[in-house]
Amino acid sequence: MRGAVIHAPGDVRLEERADPTIQNPTDAVIRLSATCVCGSDLWDYRGINTITSPTPMGHEYAGIVEEVGSEVTGIKPGQFVIGSFFASDNTCEICRAGFQTSCVHREFVGAGGAQAEYLRVPLADGTLVATPDVPSDDLVPSFLAASDVLGTGWFGAVAAEAGPGKTVAVVGDGAVGLLGVLAARELGAERIIAMSRHEPRQKLATEFGATDIVTERGDEGVARVKELTDGLGAHSVIEAVGTQESMLQAIRSARPGGAVGYVGVSHDVSLPGEELFYSHVRLLGGPAPVRRFLPDLIDRIWTGAIEPGKVFDLDLPLDQVAEGYQAMDERRAIKTLLRP
Amino acid sequence: MRGAVIHAPGDVRLEERADPTIQNPTDAVIRLSATCVCGSDLWDYRGINTITSPTPMGHEYAGIVEEVGSEVTGIKPGQFVIGSFFASDNTCEICRAGFQTSCVHREFVGAGGAQAEYLRVPLADGTLVATPDVPSDDLVPSFLAASDVLGTGWFGAVAAEAGPGKTVAVVGDGAVGLLGVLAARELGAERIIAMSRHEPRQKLATEFGATDIVTERGDEGVARVKELTDGLGAHSVIEAVGTQESMLQAIRSARPGGAVGYVGVSHDVSLPGEELFYSHVRLLGGPAPVRRFLPDLIDRIWTGAIEPGKVFDLDLPLDQVAEGYQAMDERRAIKTLLRP
Repeated sequence: MRGAVIHAPGDVRLEERADPTIQNPTDAVIRLSATCVCGSDLWDYRGINTITSPTPMGHEYAGIVEEVGSEVTGIKPGQFVIGSFFASDNTCEICRAGFQTSCVHREFVGAGGAQAEYLRVPLADGTLVATPDVPSDDLVPSFLAASDVLGTGWFGAVAAEAGPGKTVAVVGDGAVGLLGVLAARELGAERIIAMSRHEPRQKLATEFGATDIVTERGDEGVARVKELTDGLGAHSVIEAVGTQESMLQAIRSARPGGAVGYVGVSHDVSLPGEELFYSHVRLLGGPAPVRRFLPDLIDRIWTGAIEPGKVFDLDLPLDQVAEGYQAMDERRAIKTLLRP
Repeated sequence: MRGAVIHAPGDVRLEERADPTIQNPTDAVIRLSATCVCGSDLWDYRGINTITSPTPMGHEYAGIVEEVGSEVTGIKPGQFVIGSFFASDNTCEICRAGFQTSCVHREFVGAGGAQAEYLRVPLADGTLVATPDVPSDDLVPSFLAASDVLGTGWFGAVAAEAGPGKTVAVVGDGAVGLLGVLAARELGAERIIAMSRHEPRQKLATEFGATDIVTERGDEGVARVKELTDGLGAHSVIEAVGTQESMLQAIRSARPGGAVGYVGVSHDVSLPGEELFYSHVRLLGGPAPVRRFLPDLIDRIWTGAIEPGKVFDLDLPLDQVAEGYQAMDERRAIKTLLRP
């Protein structure tokens, strides 16, 4: 099969790779209907994460079940399924508490490289969720979004305790931040402040439910959020970047008793204990337990209540994967969909 | 009146000070029935906080209302009252959300120095809570504990989401940690692991409801908590020290999806973002909003359900305040009660 492999910063190639096979009786192999490039893939592409050897890329996936192992009972060939970047048994204590990305048996699905034609998914029964029927093509981008960015934005909103009567601020205008806006709206937030200085992203944020746009960053951004909230700060802040500046901006934008849901993968972040102590801000974040939300998200997409697939503003055949990365790296695209 | 003043590290003196008076119509002046020395007072006593000029000490108080300002309507002279170290209006949005220690009008009551005969309490209506009647002498230590250490341990337990079916670990065996144990028990925790290597404190922890004692610290302490929890870690961890080591011990002792309630005043703490991200641990802490819990705590003490006053293992007249500090500094006493 064909699959994307990164060789060095800026060097992603589509190559011939071995077809994945069932390795454990709990595995499934799926034929990808669509896959995409994640903001976190850019950490490799930009050389911020070290690449020690050629590595298959991609961890977001939706597609048709091709084959299942002998112990898989919950899904069957022919079904359209979505899963998270971490496989989970969905039965351990941690999974049952809703933190499937810390499952005691978790495996990184992306190790197989989802930017490809086929993908092996471990722990298929615990990991994959099938749609009611094979969806029409127009729904595929939205289901693909559920695999990571939507689920991640959703976790950010839930961790930030977004809900009715709440003012939610969103730090980061990438796909996750934008879908955090959508999640906050779906969860009933009264007011949603999107922090963005990019006109097309502002537009999409507004379409997803943002009521206010703040273009300032850092301390000025914080001051603007306070101005909009009677000097108190937002009840809920979704952090979707992962840098020191964005984390501090998020914490400082929240009111005492408020909450920050941080889902941008942390890079070189160090939180000052004393400031955090006196902030009275609740923190919860980490790799989003997308599996927790999948049944609900699939239902919302299936019924047309939400259209998260709008974050894909570049739609390419898989063999143009290199251009897909480059466009996101240069911020010409919010998020690239790839069709095998 | 007589009141304690710190002049330099290790140098606390009882001196003649001006009697406090009503300065604002929302003030009250109370005659202290009892006051005490806080673990956080030791930061000054040990020279870790800088002392720039002679400073009145003490921020924990319970006593009889002597006089109220013209706008005070909720309490009256003769009542026995308890308040928190921060005065709060108890009406602003932040107070109504239960974070009175971040009230938009908050004032540090301790500025007046509660280790004294009399104390001015600002925002009396919002700050002070009266007992049903003037209590008998034997209840006074427990009501005094409600002013800070009990309320702080209680907040730690609530922030750590202690409750039925939960395993709660407590880092720190000072008065706050010990009362965190008591709070966890009152909140219905199934199992309470007290981390302590001091025999008298272990004994009190057990009396307050600890089911397990762990004497190891740091990584060994974490490993021991994991052993006791099927390798997962505690659901809830109360952090009651405030150092880098204790914060990391608390975070690492919690399972993914678990929560740390941190109430030890942070000193030189810096939290590694990446570790926190992958820990999936929820963090909430800060100066305990004791006012939120006071009516409930007063009720539990009044009815005899709890006896938090047991943390006072040294009971001195106020004029022996210097010995009270020294005994705590040398860990001869868990907590010193002072009687004006």
